[in-house]
Amino acid sequence: MNKILVVGSIGLDSVETPFGKVKDIPGGSATYFSMAASFFSPVNLVAIVGQDFPPQHIKYLQRKGIDTAGLVVSPGRTFRWKGKYEYDLNRAHTLDTQLNVFANFQPELPADYRDSKFVFLANIDPELQLDVLQQAKKPKLVACDTMNFWIEKKKPALRRVIKQVDILFINEAEIRQLTGQSNLVKATKIVFSWGAKIIVVKQGEYGALMFTKDFVFSAPGFPLEQVYDPTGAGDSFAGGFMGYLAKNGELTEKRLRQATIFGSVIASFNVEDFSFNRFRTLTGKEIRRRFKEFKNLSHFEESL
Amino acid sequence: MNKILVVGSIGLDSVETPFGKVKDIPGGSATYFSMAASFFSPVNLVAIVGQDFPPQHIKYLQRKGIDTAGLVVSPGRTFRWKGKYEYDLNRAHTLDTQLNVFANFQPELPADYRDSKFVFLANIDPELQLDVLQQAKKPKLVACDTMNFWIEKKKPALRRVIKQVDILFINEAEIRQLTGQSNLVKATKIVFSWGAKIIVVKQGEYGALMFTKDFVFSAPGFPLEQVYDPTGAGDSFAGGFMGYLAKNGELTEKRLRQATIFGSVIASFNVEDFSFNRFRTLTGKEIRRRFKEFKNLSHFEESL
Repeated sequence: MNKILVVGSIGLDSVETPFGKVKDIPGGSATYFSMAASFFSPVNLVAIVGQDFPPQHIKYLQRKGIDTAGLVVSPGRTFRWKGKYEYDLNRAHTLDTQLNVFANFQPELPADYRDSKFVFLANIDPELQLDVLQQAKKPKLVACDTMNFWIEKKKPALRRVIKQVDILFINEAEIRQLTGQSNLVKATKIVFSWGAKIIVVKQGEYGALMFTKDFVFSAPGFPLEQVYDPTGAGDSFAGGFMGYLAKNGELTEKRLRQATIFGSVIASFNVEDFSFNRFRTLTGKEIRRRFKEFKNLSHFEESL
Repeated sequence: MNKILVVGSIGLDSVETPFGKVKDIPGGSATYFSMAASFFSPVNLVAIVGQDFPPQHIKYLQRKGIDTAGLVVSPGRTFRWKGKYEYDLNRAHTLDTQLNVFANFQPELPADYRDSKFVFLANIDPELQLDVLQQAKKPKLVACDTMNFWIEKKKPALRRVIKQVDILFINEAEIRQLTGQSNLVKATKIVFSWGAKIIVVKQGEYGALMFTKDFVFSAPGFPLEQVYDPTGAGDSFAGGFMGYLAKNGELTEKRLRQATIFGSVIASFNVEDFSFNRFRTLTGKEIRRRFKEFKNLSHFEESL
């Protein structure tokens, strides 16, 4: 069984959408990724929280097969994010960010995490991402995510990360910002010229595009009638994607295409409720059923 | 051979994009639709131009198998539209519109157009669309398009059109405006409750979603490296869609899915050059090749 190492943030989010308002619910890239990946594979979690982080959330992650030996509980307050979505739900408006203990995050891998075969460097300072890469021993597959803040502030370090990983997860506004190129195909060519191997461009409700040097794959957005809270959709997508690859173990074109769909499947469930609440009741049967619905959504016959 | 009747606008467009600037080139919904559909089926065109409309454009349409018996050349100037696209190419900024002879357009079907089996009511006043429907004898399939202006000004007439046609082509901003509902799935349910049968929601570079009461189909956007001018993409999409259905004659789920892809194929070519210039050199072989590329773009295996 391949284990997935994830290094990222855990926070307490306060979120307002047209459908409701929640306060201090578990959030952060590592939380969403871990929960999403746990439907497929065991996860080794590296993150930091403050002493105010409710222990029941940690116990819940553990019950889902997530190893929390790498989760540091530090004196001080947990990272907090406050955001709001308008009616179109496409863009989060950040109202407040408090880094708190996350400002001093220095990820250290417990000894038995170091040979994790699959590694996900969630959206954190690219210098920390590089630091984690040095601690990992010969992973089979490494992926990273990033955000506009690091693209603006730490582009050289981010480019070093991109060169070293196998898969870059990035949303379309970010890859345009990163490359200064508005055409997506041209933007990916620039990032390939920096040494990237696989680029997964997340397009929110429109789905995702996976670019490799050999083929491009488009996963549709799933037309949902209930979208309550898009927070964590991108990390849930990466979790489903990496979780399926780790479970399966094969890094073939067939599996990469399916992983993009499983990422979309998991993300489509995540947005149906606040925080990772939808994951609390989600079953393997529901996941497989929606995978088939994605097939039905995008299938057409080649014979004319 | 099923003939397609199209009623819509023909104009002379002046367009500026980051890649160039053109003046008084042939445009308009009926022009793009006819050219696109002509790759599959013969077309009966009903439209109006002024005496200043260059005759060589009409001759060109004729050479493509488009019957122009229903094209009225009226004293006065041709409809003109002037627009500009910024770097993202997603939204046209209208700089000037001159209706000219189009302001007095009263579509009349020549006798031998009246039994056209396939009918496309392009984006014109819904009252004129209703008028055309009364002139047509028992068509097998009728589709319509519309725009924000008619949604705002003539919603009751537009709802009567929607009730009478088989397929509504509409872009996602328009269906949200039409229904006051931002969730697409909910918006389509409202339009179905008005009597719509099939709703094709156009999403620009992200592709298209076809909603029926039995299934939903998602056609991906084709990742293009060269997008010169998005003008006419929606009408080209409808032309490829209707053209393929008319050629094939079957109105099955299989054919509707394929038609959505052929619409996407034709639209993806159209945006590669200004006006319908790309259609001047486009071959059936190129169309079939890109259809296969769409298959490769969206295909994944169901076996896990």
